[in-house]
Formats: sequence, C-alpha cells, structure tokens
Amino acid sequence: MSTALIVVLLCGVLSLAYAGWAIRSVLASDQGSARMQEIAGAIREGAQAYLARQYTTIAVVGVVVFLGSWLLLSIHAAVGFLIGSVLSGVAGFIGMNVSVRANVRTAQAASRSLAAGLDIAFKSGAITGMLVAGLALIGVAAYFLFLTGPSGYAPTDRTVIDSLVSLGFGASLISIFARLGGGIFTKGADVGGDLVGKVEAGIPEDDPRNPATIADNVGDNVGDCAGMAADLFETYAVTVVATMVLGAIFFAGSPVVATAMLYPLTICAACIVTSIVGTFFVRLGANGSIMGALYKGLWVTTLLSVVGIGLATAATFGFGRVEGGDTGISGLNLFFCGLVGLVVTGLIVFITEYYTGIGYRPVRSISQASVSGHGTNVIQGLAVSLEATALPTIVIIAGIIATYQLAGLYGTGIAVTAMLGLAGMIVALDAFGPVTDNAGGIAEMAGLPSDVRKSTDALDAVGNTTKAVTKGYAIGSAGLGALVLFAAYNYDLQYFIAQAKAGQGYAYFQGVAPDFSLTNPFVVVGLLLGGLIPYLFGGIAMTAVGRAASAVVEEVRRQFREKPGIMEGRERPDYARAVDMLTRAAIREMIVPSLLPVLAPLVVFFLVLLIADKSQAFSALGAMLLGVIVTGLFVAISMTSGGGAWDNAKKSFEDGFVDGAGTRHMKGSDAHKASVTGDTVGDPYKDTAGPAVNPAIKITNIVALLLLAVLAHG
Amino acid sequence: MSTALIVVLLCGVLSLAYAGWAIRSVLASDQGSARMQEIAGAIREGAQAYLARQYTTIAVVGVVVFLGSWLLLSIHAAVGFLIGSVLSGVAGFIGMNVSVRANVRTAQAASRSLAAGLDIAFKSGAITGMLVAGLALIGVAAYFLFLTGPSGYAPTDRTVIDSLVSLGFGASLISIFARLGGGIFTKGADVGGDLVGKVEAGIPEDDPRNPATIADNVGDNVGDCAGMAADLFETYAVTVVATMVLGAIFFAGSPVVATAMLYPLTICAACIVTSIVGTFFVRLGANGSIMGALYKGLWVTTLLSVVGIGLATAATFGFGRVEGGDTGISGLNLFFCGLVGLVVTGLIVFITEYYTGIGYRPVRSISQASVSGHGTNVIQGLAVSLEATALPTIVIIAGIIATYQLAGLYGTGIAVTAMLGLAGMIVALDAFGPVTDNAGGIAEMAGLPSDVRKSTDALDAVGNTTKAVTKGYAIGSAGLGALVLFAAYNYDLQYFIAQAKAGQGYAYFQGVAPDFSLTNPFVVVGLLLGGLIPYLFGGIAMTAVGRAASAVVEEVRRQFREKPGIMEGRERPDYARAVDMLTRAAIREMIVPSLLPVLAPLVVFFLVLLIADKSQAFSALGAMLLGVIVTGLFVAISMTSGGGAWDNAKKSFEDGFVDGAGTRHMKGSDAHKASVTGDTVGDPYKDTAGPAVNPAIKITNIVALLLLAVLAHG
Repeated sequence: MSTALIVVLLCGVLSLAYAGWAIRSVLASDQGSARMQEIAGAIREGAQAYLARQYTTIAVVGVVVFLGSWLLLSIHAAVGFLIGSVLSGVAGFIGMNVSVRANVRTAQAASRSLAAGLDIAFKSGAITGMLVAGLALIGVAAYFLFLTGPSGYAPTDRTVIDSLVSLGFGASLISIFARLGGGIFTKGADVGGDLVGKVEAGIPEDDPRNPATIADNVGDNVGDCAGMAADLFETYAVTVVATMVLGAIFFAGSPVVATAMLYPLTICAACIVTSIVGTFFVRLGANGSIMGALYKGLWVTTLLSVVGIGLATAATFGFGRVEGGDTGISGLNLFFCGLVGLVVTGLIVFITEYYTGIGYRPVRSISQASVSGHGTNVIQGLAVSLEATALPTIVIIAGIIATYQLAGLYGTGIAVTAMLGLAGMIVALDAFGPVTDNAGGIAEMAGLPSDVRKSTDALDAVGNTTKAVTKGYAIGSAGLGALVLFAAYNYDLQYFIAQAKAGQGYAYFQGVAPDFSLTNPFVVVGLLLGGLIPYLFGGIAMTAVGRAASAVVEEVRRQFREKPGIMEGRERPDYARAVDMLTRAAIREMIVPSLLPVLAPLVVFFLVLLIADKSQAFSALGAMLLGVIVTGLFVAISMTSGGGAWDNAKKSFEDGFVDGAGTRHMKGSDAHKASVTGDTVGDPYKDTAGPAVNPAIKITNIVALLLLAVLAHG
Repeated sequence: MSTALIVVLLCGVLSLAYAGWAIRSVLASDQGSARMQEIAGAIREGAQAYLARQYTTIAVVGVVVFLGSWLLLSIHAAVGFLIGSVLSGVAGFIGMNVSVRANVRTAQAASRSLAAGLDIAFKSGAITGMLVAGLALIGVAAYFLFLTGPSGYAPTDRTVIDSLVSLGFGASLISIFARLGGGIFTKGADVGGDLVGKVEAGIPEDDPRNPATIADNVGDNVGDCAGMAADLFETYAVTVVATMVLGAIFFAGSPVVATAMLYPLTICAACIVTSIVGTFFVRLGANGSIMGALYKGLWVTTLLSVVGIGLATAATFGFGRVEGGDTGISGLNLFFCGLVGLVVTGLIVFITEYYTGIGYRPVRSISQASVSGHGTNVIQGLAVSLEATALPTIVIIAGIIATYQLAGLYGTGIAVTAMLGLAGMIVALDAFGPVTDNAGGIAEMAGLPSDVRKSTDALDAVGNTTKAVTKGYAIGSAGLGALVLFAAYNYDLQYFIAQAKAGQGYAYFQGVAPDFSLTNPFVVVGLLLGGLIPYLFGGIAMTAVGRAASAVVEEVRRQFREKPGIMEGRERPDYARAVDMLTRAAIREMIVPSLLPVLAPLVVFFLVLLIADKSQAFSALGAMLLGVIVTGLFVAISMTSGGGAWDNAKKSFEDGFVDGAGTRHMKGSDAHKASVTGDTVGDPYKDTAGPAVNPAIKITNIVALLLLAVLAHG
C-alpha cells in the first residue's frame, strides 16, 4: 500500500510543481505603468491586511480546538486538525497572493491582446486550483501514510479515522470563517460602493474617486479567491476523508479494506494529472470565445479523467469481483460510479450555465421583467432562483440511485470523490474570475484605453458564469455526499454500539439503540432543526452584508462631505480607511453565524439527551445531518443560481436588451436601473449567504462525527 | 356515540345560524351613495364572474376525480369527495358574496365612525369564519354519522376511513386551485396596477382613472377571501380527518376506539361555540386600538377554549386512564395536548406579529435599509424572511416533543385539532382584511372625504398583520400536523401489510416491507424530491404572477393610449376588460402548478417501483411526505412573514419614518419608493406562492393516502 500512497503523493507534488512553474511565469510578465502598480499595491496591501487579521482571529478559535481535540481525543487528532487548517490557510494565502499580483499583469497583458490577458488570468486561477487539490491530497495522503507507516496504526484503527476526521474539521473551520468573512467583506464593499457611487454620486463602477473602490477590489480577492479556495479545499478533504472512512467501515475485516481506503486517493491523484494536462488546452481559439477556451480545458480534463479513473481502478481493485462489503460489487461497478461523478459534474455545469448564462430563457425573463420595473425584476429573479433548484436536484437524485444500485453507499462516495477530483480544474475556472475583475478595475482607475477595459469586461462576464458553475458544483457534491457523511455517522455509531455490546469498551454507547425511522418524532424534530440551520444562517449572513454595506455608505458619504475635492479629482480619497473599516466589520460579523453550524449539533444532542435519552439524542442528531442537507441544497442552489442570473440580466443591458415588444433598452435606461437592483440583491445571495451554506452543511456533519469520537474516547 | 355526534352537529348548525344572523345584520346596513353602489356593483360582478369561471374549471377536474374515486374505491368515497369539495366551494362562495356586499357598507359606516366600520367589516369576516368551521365540521361529522349509522359500517371500517380521506381530498383540490388562482389574480392586478398606475402614470392607489383598479379590488375578494376560506376549510377538514384516522388505528381493537374518533370532533364543536362567544368581544375600546379589539376577541376565544376542551375531554375520555393505544395515556394528558395546541397558536400569533408588525426590529430594519436604496431594502427583507422561520420552527418542534411525550402521535393530532378549532375566529380576523381594503378603494373612487379613507386605512393596516398571522397559523398547523399525516400513511400501510400477511386480502401488499430509516437511500431520495415541490411550485407561482402583472401593464397602457380622455377624467376606463383578462390569465396559470403536488406522489411511487421494488417505492413516497413539509414549512413561513414585513415597512413611511440618523422620510421620498419595491416583491411572496404551499403540502399527503387506498382496493 505504501508504494501506491507514494505515487499518490508524487501526483500531489506534481500539482505543486505546476503551481510553482505557473507562479514564476505569471510573476515574470509585465507589471504595467507606475500608476497601475500603485493601484495594484493598494489592493495587495488591503487584501494582505485583511487575510492576516482573518487568520489571526481564526487562530484564536483554532488554538482552542487544537488543545480541545488533544485533550478529548489524542495528539494525532490534534495534529490532524492542525494539518487541515494550516494547509487550507496556505492554499488560500498563496492563491490570493498570486491573484493580487496577477491582476495588474492581466490588465497590462490585455492591452496587448485578449489571448494574452486570458493566459495570465487563467494561469493565476490554475495556481489556486492546483494548490487546493494538491495540498488537500498531500495532507490527507501523507498523514494517512504517517499514521499507518511510522506510527504503526492499522488503516482502520480508530486513531487513524479520528485523525483524518479532525483533518477535515480543520479544513471546515477555516472554510466557514473564510467563506463568511470574505463574503461579507466583498459584498459589503460591492453593495455599499455601488449604492453610494453609482446611484448617489452617479460615477461609474471602479471610478478612482469612489473611496470604496479599492475595498471592492480587495473583496474580490479575499472573498472570491481566498474564501472560495478554502471552501473547495474543505469539500475536497472532507469528501475524501468521508469516503475513506466509509471504505474502512464498509469493508471492515475484508482483505481489501486497505485498498478501499486507498482507492479514493488514487482517483484524486489521477484526476490531478488530468487537470494539469487540461490547463494546457485553455487557449483562445479562432472564434475568440473565452467560454469556449475554458470549456475546452474542462472537457479535456473530464475525458482524460475517464481514462485516469480507469487506471486507478485497475491499479487498486481491478475490474473483477471485489471481496467483502455486504453486496457483491465489482471493480467495474466502482469505475462506473466514478463515471457517474463525472457525468453529474458535466450536467451540473450545463444546467448552471443554462440558468445563469446570457441568451437563455431564465436570464432573458429577468431582463424582460426589468422593463416593467424594480419590483418585477426582483420577482422574476426570485422565481428563477426557486425554479433553478429542480434540475440539479433531479441530477443528484439520479446520481444517488445509480451509484447505490451499482455499489452501495461506498459507490456513492466514489462518485463524489471523482466529482471532487476535478476540483483543480474547476477552481482554476473560478479563481480566474477575481483576477479579471480586478484587472478591469485597475484598467479603469489607471485610465487605460477603453479597449483594454473591453477585453477585461469580456473576461469578467465569463468569470460570472464560471463562478456560478463552481458554486453549483460544490453544493451538488455536498448533496450527493450527504448520504456518505450520514452513512459515516451511522456506521461509526453502529460500530461503537456493537463494540460496547461485546464489552470491548466504548461504555458510553452501552444500550444505545438509535431509531432513524421517519416514524420516530425525534427524527422529524432533527430534520426540522437541521433544516432551520441554512435559513437562520442565510438570514444572519444577509443582514451582516446589509450592515457592512450601510457602514460603507456612511464612510463614503463622510469622505465626500469632508473632502469636497474628491469628486473634482483634486483630492485623493482615503481608500485604506474604507478597507480597514470593512475588515473590522467582516471579522466581527463572521463570528456568530460561523459558530451556528459548529454548535448546533452539540446543542441538539445535549438538549434531546436532557428531554429523552441517549438513543433519541443520537437519532435526532443523525436526522439533523440530513435536515441540513435537504434545505441547504435548495437554499444554496437557489441563492447562487438566482444571484448569477440577476448579475447577467444586468450585463445583458450593456449591449442593449431588446424586449418582447422590440424596444432596445440600453445602459442607463430605466430597465437597466431596475436590473441593477436585482444585481444588488443577488450579490449577497450568490457571494455570501449561498456559498457559505456549503461549509455549513459539512461542518455540521463533521462536528457530529467528532462528537461521536469524543464520546467514544471519554 | 350518535348522541354525541348530534351535539357536535348542533354546534355546527349554531355556527351557520350565527352566520345567517350576521348576514342579515350586514345586509341591513346602509349601502351609501349611488356612486358607491355603482363601484361596489362592478367589484361584485367581477368577483362573481371570476368565481363562476374558477368553479367551472375545477368542476371539470372534479368530475374526473369523482368518477375515478367511484371506480377505484367506492361510491361512498366518491360522495365523500363531493361533500368535501362542494362544502368548501359553498363556504368560499357565500363568504365572498357577503364580502363584496360588506365592502361598500363598511365604507359608508366608516364615514360615521371607526367603530361602526370595524363592526361591519369584522362581522363580514366572522361570517366567512363561521361558515368555514361550521361547514367543515358538519361535513365530516354528518358523513361519519351517516356511514356509521344508516349505512351500518363500523367506525374503523376501511370504507369509512377511505370516505373521510376522500372528503379531505375534495377540500384539498378546491383549496389548491382557489389559493393559486385567487392568488395569481389578486397579485397580478395589484402588482400590475401599481406598476403602471403609481409608478408610470403617477396616480395614487385606487384612483378611478386606473383601468386595473376594479380588478385589484376584485382580487382582494377572490384571493384573500374565497381563496383563504378554501385553504382553511381544507386545513380544518384534513386535520380532523387525519386525527380521526389516527385514532382509529391507534386504538384499533380497544373499546375506546369510537371515542378516539369522536374526540377531535367534540373539540372542534366546543371551539366553535367559544369562537362565536369571542366574536361578541370584538369591539373598539376606549383607546381606539383596532388590533386590541380583534385580539380581545381572540384571547377570549382562546381562554374559553381551555374550558371547552376540558368539557369535551370530560364528555368523552374523561380525565382518567385511557384503555388501549400502545402507551398508558390519560384523558388529562390529552387535555394537556389540546392546551399545547392553543399555546402554539398563541405563540405563533405573537411571533408573526413581531416579524410583520410596525414598531418592532424586523420591520424597522427594512424601513432603515430602504434609506440606502431599492437593493438594500430587498436584501434586508430577504434576510428578515429567512430569519423569521426560526422561532416558529422551534415552537412547532417544542409542540411535537411535548405532545408526543404526553400522549404519543394521537396527542400531536389532538394538539393540531385544538389549533384548528380556533379557525372560526382566526378566519374572521383574516377575512375582515379584504373587506376593509375594498372599503378604502370604494371610498377613494367615490371621492368620499379624506377622513373616511383614514378610517379605512387604519382598518386595512391591521388587516395586513392579521393576514400574516393567519398564514403563519395555517402553515404552523401543517408543520405540527406533518407527523400526523405521515403517521396516517405509515399506519395505513402497516395495516395493509399485516392483513396481507395474515391472508386477509390486500394482495398488493404481500411481502412489502418499507424501510423508513434515513440510512435507506430511497428515503433520502424521497426527502429531496419532496423538498423540491415547494421550491418548484413557488417558482412557477411567482412567474405566473409576473406574467399576469405584465399582461395588466400592457392592457392599462393600451387603454391610456387609445382613450386619452381617461387620464383627464373625461372618459371611463374599461374596467371589465382588465377583470376579464386577469380571470382568463389566472385560471390558465393555476392549472400546472396545482397539478404538481397532486401528481408528484404518483410519479415518485411508480418511478421508484420501476427502478427498485414496492417496498422502496412506499419508502420513497413516505419520505417525500416529510420532505415536502421540511422545506415547505420554511418556504411558506419565510415568504408570508417576509412579505408582511415588506408591506408594513412601506406603510411605516406613510406617517414618516425616522431613520437612524434622525432624518424623517415621508411618503414620496426616495426611501419610500425603495420600500414600494420591497412591497411589490413581497406581494406574490405572501399572497400567492407562500400561502399556496400549505395546500400543496396537504394534497401531497392526501394523494399518498388515497393511493394506498386504491392499491388496497384494486
């Protein structure tokens, strides 16, 4: 096994090597004029200051958790937590530091050609992508190798499993803070800056006279780059860990148990290689379609991954009958499960593009509704956001049924792993967005010729869709992975109960008999309480953005009032103050909602324990894990798709939208203004509340698993 | 038993007698000037024309279902369906016909005094309320008496149970069509009329020059009166039937089984009497508080209901130990369950008022957010709508746990029955809203002095809150009743399986072994598919309103263009055309979404049957019933509370809203305009999509029960 693990690690190292090469390549390119470098410097400083503060705050929570898991579990679990959180932080930190350097270089390159701009922006995105996938894979594989090799634990030893789950928890904790803090920062700046700049002062977006404009660009990096990276790192790590845990339990006692734990790692390793190959296919074709160039890379990666997963299967289970597990499954079935993961990814990309892309019915219907006013724009946007949940849900359901029929719950885990295998490429598509967004801002502020801005705008428009796609992908994997996470909880629990019954320790679980049937009222209670989390969480996040945006509005108004020279271009606004204010606001506002999904499972467990008994407490907690998925899936998809659709409906007015009656509405028309309202509403929907639901779901599940481990240990 | 049933029936007749007395009293009052009567006549004609068309359309579906249930079940089931649908239709029809006559009389009375206006409007509401509760109770009790008396069936005979469930289905079918059709009509008129009138033409609401103004007033009656009446009739009938069915199963073979089926009926009978008494306490006090007057009536009813439920318990089970059932419960426990129902009602009323009332944090936060623009108003409104789900959910969860601990699932059923017992009073509070809304419109159009309008506006503002309260109450009872409906499904299924096993017929269920555990992937699939229904349904409903509103905008623009004399007051707009167009649009748009929850259970059952087997098909269908509740509860509460909060945030500007910085924003200010956008968005949220989720939940459950019955019969 250790040879295979070393190959897996080498694939992880390959992705870091790719990242290193790409960093050199990006940094070597032209940084543009002094003015451009000055602006980029301000963005860089702001972003670094924010990230430093965010990590410091998380570190405080992290130290408590580290000591807690040492005390309650083991030093190995504590170290696992440390690995997960530090690597997640590193991926976000390096990714963002490249992003804030690539932005100005993209702007400069775009002044040469669209292809050159795309090249730098995409490379920057690919760096983040490869760091996320590579570091996550290395973290899990190396720690697994360490625990089962030098430390001498059996692969299925509780210490190994607890330590891997703790690693996932480390990643989750960073992720929820980074998603929320970054999301509140970026949308507070965006919404607040737009309201006071575009609406009140009547100056365009990214106008250097707007004191919030640097903050807006900082936000793109800390939210859409660092926050997103932490989210996907977590999704990747948690999925792989959960599938490994499921493999350990599902094949317990069988000779292939180590293979079952290794298999998800090999799939990830194979897909990292195919992702790296895919990046080289992202090149602007003769038709000049940016989306086409990106999709070429994605499709090449996906097709090569079919081969990659095939090789991974051949090298581990082989394609024949697999011994162990409770059903007679074959390696071929597992390979098919991997393919289901790829197909689900493809369908979700396709569906998300339909719901958020310009030119399709949903976005057109919002543009059309804007013609009758602000109210109808928002109504139609909400209608689209509700409707957009249907097809992805059906795809996920089909995925669950297909994989379960093929290879049981372990098969579902393999499908999600294959989905996440593509994370390197998908994150690359996403992290390219904030770079181009920033490049446009720098071009505007530095007064570059309008055709540069046109190139960066074209890149940015594509970035909107790819951002929506990544979110759909992340939440889709969570939906498909729900069963895996719940199964991990259930099997862990059953294991402890069985051991306790046999007198093999785990005294806490003596006589526990959970009843997960829907006929048990505590299951219904758990489902409802779980279902509440995404709603309450979303409500708090939306309020936080509103509050941060209002603070920005006040600050900008104050600067305009006190420095009347700003609007005439004679005085320089105090950009740093707006950044600093937002930093404090975002860090303050992220604490309470982040702790909600962390503490909710504990509160539910101990409350039900108080009212009823241990069995019901475990039943309610288990049901809560599924409840949070059932509503979370719908809340997250509706928010991210709806927000993306609103954004692109606004963009559709930039080239003039021709309504049903044949009238053309241009930028600045009443219909365009109505579409700006929808975009503003969609901002916190798609970039703060919606995406943060994904880590919220995961963290609830991971905390439940850890609670089991702690109770078993205590 | 039949003596008790006759007493129950007499209580039902008492409510009809009250309604008859109140109708005479309303009709006897002054109808006002010829101009007022002319306007009211136009509203009446429009409303009657709409209702005739709606009932004709439903009748087509109804005839098919009637024949189908005769063929697939029995003549008794078909007649049950007929009773449920016809009585629901009658309650809506009479209620609305009183409402369209009370409106002008309220306007006239309001010109004398606020107290006189309140008196007529509330009496009109109470007529609808008493008809809903009375007819529903009479329908269920009389048919039960007929089946168990002259027809000679045992109370627990399958024919009796199937016939009662069919009665519930009849009510459900009317309800979903009426809620949706009425909701699309009223909000299409409201949103469209406002957009083209207030925003484009700059004329006030209810201005007679607006061709959509009569349609708007018609909408209040067909949506908020007839639609709401059908909804509550259904909730009432379905809850009582489900509790009776649960009693029949829970106490099967015990001597008290007939009592267990009778008990919910006696609770309803007692609460009808207390509701009638309560109506006499609704009188404007010295402080002139309308809300205070209404709440006095509600609290008197609630307090008297404690006594009433006590008497009902004494007359049936007594307070001692109850024989049978699987737990040792006592009559006292059941009495406490009834009280839990009353407490839940009180808490939900209180919480809904907090989230939607002017003067509390949530509405103030939306008003404050309006100061920074349209976008922030909508963001804050959505934040409030998400957050507003938390407390009601916790109350419902507490209710589930408390009643289950007291007396098992039957206890939960009794709590919901007690909640619904108050329906007569709650509907009275709600149905009073459209009357005052209309009265305001008539006062405006007839050019009555401004102080009349002021009185009707004061009544109308209270109507907004009571409308939100009723919706919270209806959906809250559905949440608490979820377990009861699922239990009815589960116990029915278990009964058929047990009988099939014992060779007592029901061959279809031979060897069926459903697994409702969350560890079964088909249960997760069912939960997700159920969860999808409210989202898809809501999306379609919102789109339908948007489309209807756009059609109204086009029509009004056309009239303004072709008849330039309208705006100068020289020409009369063609009101009837707008009404007719909306009628057609609403009827057309209601069909597809109404059929979604009717057909979804069938599709899920037969699809899973195709993929897997009978056991999994029953498991997935059962999970679907809970899935639709889990998301439906959140969707419905968030929409109705959010919409109510937006509405009152707009109203808060009418007397001037003082923002955080101390500035006063009046009607017509930018902040007020932003709040109008939120109100427009909230309209279909709170009056179309949100409330229609309630019948959608019920109908999914009822269809599943009927499917069981049909499979058992075939």
